[in-house]
Amino acid sequence: MCRWIAYSGSAITLEHYVTQPSHSLVVQSLRALESTVGLNGDGFGLGWYGAGHPEPGTYHEVRPAWSDGNLKSLCRHLSSHLFFAHVRAATGTPVTRTNCHPFTFGRWLFMHNGYLANWPRMRRAVETMIPDDIYNARGGTTDSEAMFLVLLAQGLADERAATDPVEATRKLLARLTEMAGEEPLLFTAALSDGQDLYAFRYGVNATANTLYYRASPSGVVVVSEPLDDDRATWIEVPSNAALIARAGQGVQLAPLLS
Amino acid sequence: MCRWIAYSGSAITLEHYVTQPSHSLVVQSLRALESTVGLNGDGFGLGWYGAGHPEPGTYHEVRPAWSDGNLKSLCRHLSSHLFFAHVRAATGTPVTRTNCHPFTFGRWLFMHNGYLANWPRMRRAVETMIPDDIYNARGGTTDSEAMFLVLLAQGLADERAATDPVEATRKLLARLTEMAGEEPLLFTAALSDGQDLYAFRYGVNATANTLYYRASPSGVVVVSEPLDDDRATWIEVPSNAALIARAGQGVQLAPLLS
Amino acid sequence: MCRWIAYSGSAITLEHYVTQPSHSLVVQSLRALESTVGLNGDGFGLGWYGAGHPEPGTYHEVRPAWSDGNLKSLCRHLSSHLFFAHVRAATGTPVTRTNCHPFTFGRWLFMHNGYLANWPRMRRAVETMIPDDIYNARGGTTDSEAMFLVLLAQGLADERAATDPVEATRKLLARLTEMAGEEPLLFTAALSDGQDLYAFRYGVNATANTLYYRASPSGVVVVSEPLDDDRATWIEVPSNAALIARAGQGVQLAPLLS
Amino acid sequence: MCRWIAYSGSAITLEHYVTQPSHSLVVQSLRALESTVGLNGDGFGLGWYGAGHPEPGTYHEVRPAWSDGNLKSLCRHLSSHLFFAHVRAATGTPVTRTNCHPFTFGRWLFMHNGYLANWPRMRRAVETMIPDDIYNARGGTTDSEAMFLVLLAQGLADERAATDPVEATRKLLARLTEMAGEEPLLFTAALSDGQDLYAFRYGVNATANTLYYRASPSGVVVVSEPLDDDRATWIEVPSNAALIARAGQGVQLAPLLS
Repeated sequence: MCRWIAYSGSAITLEHYVTQPSHSLVVQSLRALESTVGLNGDGFGLGWYGAGHPEPGTYHEVRPAWSDGNLKSLCRHLSSHLFFAHVRAATGTPVTRTNCHPFTFGRWLFMHNGYLANWPRMRRAVETMIPDDIYNARGGTTDSEAMFLVLLAQGLADERAATDPVEATRKLLARLTEMAGEEPLLFTAALSDGQDLYAFRYGVNATANTLYYRASPSGVVVVSEPLDDDRATWIEVPSNAALIARAGQGVQLAPLLS
Repeated sequence: MCRWIAYSGSAITLEHYVTQPSHSLVVQSLRALESTVGLNGDGFGLGWYGAGHPEPGTYHEVRPAWSDGNLKSLCRHLSSHLFFAHVRAATGTPVTRTNCHPFTFGRWLFMHNGYLANWPRMRRAVETMIPDDIYNARGGTTDSEAMFLVLLAQGLADERAATDPVEATRKLLARLTEMAGEEPLLFTAALSDGQDLYAFRYGVNATANTLYYRASPSGVVVVSEPLDDDRATWIEVPSNAALIARAGQGVQLAPLLS
Repeated sequence: MCRWIAYSGSAITLEHYVTQPSHSLVVQSLRALESTVGLNGDGFGLGWYGAGHPEPGTYHEVRPAWSDGNLKSLCRHLSSHLFFAHVRAATGTPVTRTNCHPFTFGRWLFMHNGYLANWPRMRRAVETMIPDDIYNARGGTTDSEAMFLVLLAQGLADERAATDPVEATRKLLARLTEMAGEEPLLFTAALSDGQDLYAFRYGVNATANTLYYRASPSGVVVVSEPLDDDRATWIEVPSNAALIARAGQGVQLAPLLS
Repeated sequence: MCRWIAYSGSAITLEHYVTQPSHSLVVQSLRALESTVGLNGDGFGLGWYGAGHPEPGTYHEVRPAWSDGNLKSLCRHLSSHLFFAHVRAATGTPVTRTNCHPFTFGRWLFMHNGYLANWPRMRRAVETMIPDDIYNARGGTTDSEAMFLVLLAQGLADERAATDPVEATRKLLARLTEMAGEEPLLFTAALSDGQDLYAFRYGVNATANTLYYRASPSGVVVVSEPLDDDRATWIEVPSNAALIARAGQGVQLAPLLS
């Protein structure tokens, strides 16, 4: 079911959230607490924005996060004002780098926790929704990446369109909800263009996966589950809501589908 | 551009062709001689039929064949009456296990050397030709795997249909040739159902990749390029031809497209 | 702390014990029950004897057993009269193939569960006990491999010596026990020369790790923990004991150190 | 035989030398020109110093540099005032991350091109020269790492000793030369403590491997072979010489052994 964190704020090294907290993302790869699956050992990934390039950097690895020596070193040395990190629990698709989150397209970065059941039966229909000019970006076989590419097609891929990402996500979720019918659709995801950070918590025919955030003047961190025992400082994002953290502004919440 | 070998005959260990000859497939991974690309270091794979299971076993690895310690051990100990081995030179798609040959579907095994240019532009059209009931077998993003799945759809996936594999391949190549238009289509491939071995050499708008075989009463080995200097014993398969090695019979050649 | 199985008897495919039982070794890689560590996700390995070669074949992989597609295929197709399989929970040394069990030297195969504490402090002293003519076989940095190489030096490496493996292991454990002093030494291991199978359960300054076997006329399987719920058929090997399963004979137990 | 680059100067992204030049290190992994081995596909590594940590970051990977998607992303986004990059051609030891350069110990970073023949015969003697308090840093089995650990023991590991690295290297090479006897010793290496950069070109009983540098007011880059066709700007380091590039100063050369 995957666990992830997203950060936006003053530039910090990734270790602050990926490796150092008592219940860091690496600890969650071994023992997640608020998930039906405690183990997230099917690969992991990092995505981050830096100076000099509008496109994010990414690091994907099929080994578990807990045993990758490179991860610790990168998290100590990579500094970023906006980064994503994700540990994967595969739900049927292979453990390849191309199936590891976060996914990227131009300046966009996306990661996801959940599933669109029954994916083997839904796959073709969702992939058909990806427009031709984006289709070659399809590098793996996950539902997550396919949903990202369909999301991009709701106007985000066109830089001149200035499409609102929350509005685009609403359109995506409306279409997916219709396709899901009686089956569960779980969508807890993060999206960014390098400036603003968006996170979404949504579920139909099943309880939405957990999502929390902690905000301070220096930044906001959005997480699948709290990174430490100081529970009072973690605010739960309600189900069927979008979290919007625009650069230099505080956190806003907005409803998703009515 | 890849290099491969296919064997059918008395059961032997894979080392006879994969690792032991002076110009073995592992040597070809470092220094292929009859290819525009001498280096085939972008992963490799084995496929073999054994007792007790109609479906072939496979082994895929993203490391180069020359540095994989497992490969040597497996080739010494795996014995088979019909096996494939393939070293890959990627032509644009990522080095993941799901992009490594040979590909499998039920009892079918397939591997390929060549390309369908311009793949990024052709990809969607070829994938659209894969029928719904086979589509979930699409695990990677190569042109090779997509062509295999379309080939299966020419009747091979239906076990009751008893479709002739050469006829199915003719249909596939006719369709692909039309799609390729003025661009090169290179298709040097091997196919088996665990009983019979088929190999194909075909090219349009470019010279077909090389293909040779050596036959003896104990078996036939089909190769991208000769495995040793005894050139007189290697027979070149003509371009636009199918090689048919039915179980317990000799080698036959048949034309492909007229 | 690792989990493993060893089999000797009529030739069978590895899947019988590695992947098929309800509490198979692959299931144990996710959820071991009789270990202080439930997760054994730090690589795995296979070792097996076959026809035609006195030396065993091996397969080592740094990915967890549960997500390696090759493992399932190999276990279905590799058949052997004597094989080992091991899933690793690293205790401080890196996750590399050279640190994955089983280890091999000539016709010998060895795997281990336990540790020699404090390894970072003991390492040099143990490695010093490896004789010069064996030293280059040291490929990794685990205590397990080092103990194997010292064991070989108790006469096993010399094929003409016809040294009794149980006696050699007694000598090894006596030396290690002396070196361990007040610190724990846990040694639950399997050893074979391709003919006979030996397993050992030993612990000082700590409870020895569990070890069980199930014997039938067709063979014996020795395991870290039972592979299914039919507990009555699994016999616990007592602590401080050697299990001896000579080719074509039943199981014998013998005491280790007095 | 390996290829490498080392840079010291104004902070730049690693892509300037690792991936962008016409004959970049990644190109050299496929086609090195001034080496007996053109292919350097047996893993690679990066090491770099950054703000906030005296210890360098490292990234090691067993895949070839040319097919690792992470490498390109990291080189675009990692910025450093002093970094190393290395592509490996193994000379007998396995392709594991622990055998990939650069090696690190505290604030020291080291990488090497060459060999100490006959390594299987010399190994134990060289490893015996590693002092007890450094011995646990031995993570792999290469001659390169062993030589680094012996080098550290010439005073560098003791931070209060303020040992001159060139003098320490002279001591190392004198000892190794004596041990090599009539056999070749090739040592072309880079060393840094995060402030100063040292490079060495040395060979006995064989021609020393090539070494070049290019200096400008903004920094110095030291390379196994030139990164572009502008040969006039690349200065060859003479054999049996040390290159010293102290932080904020120009390049000095000093003789090694007399």
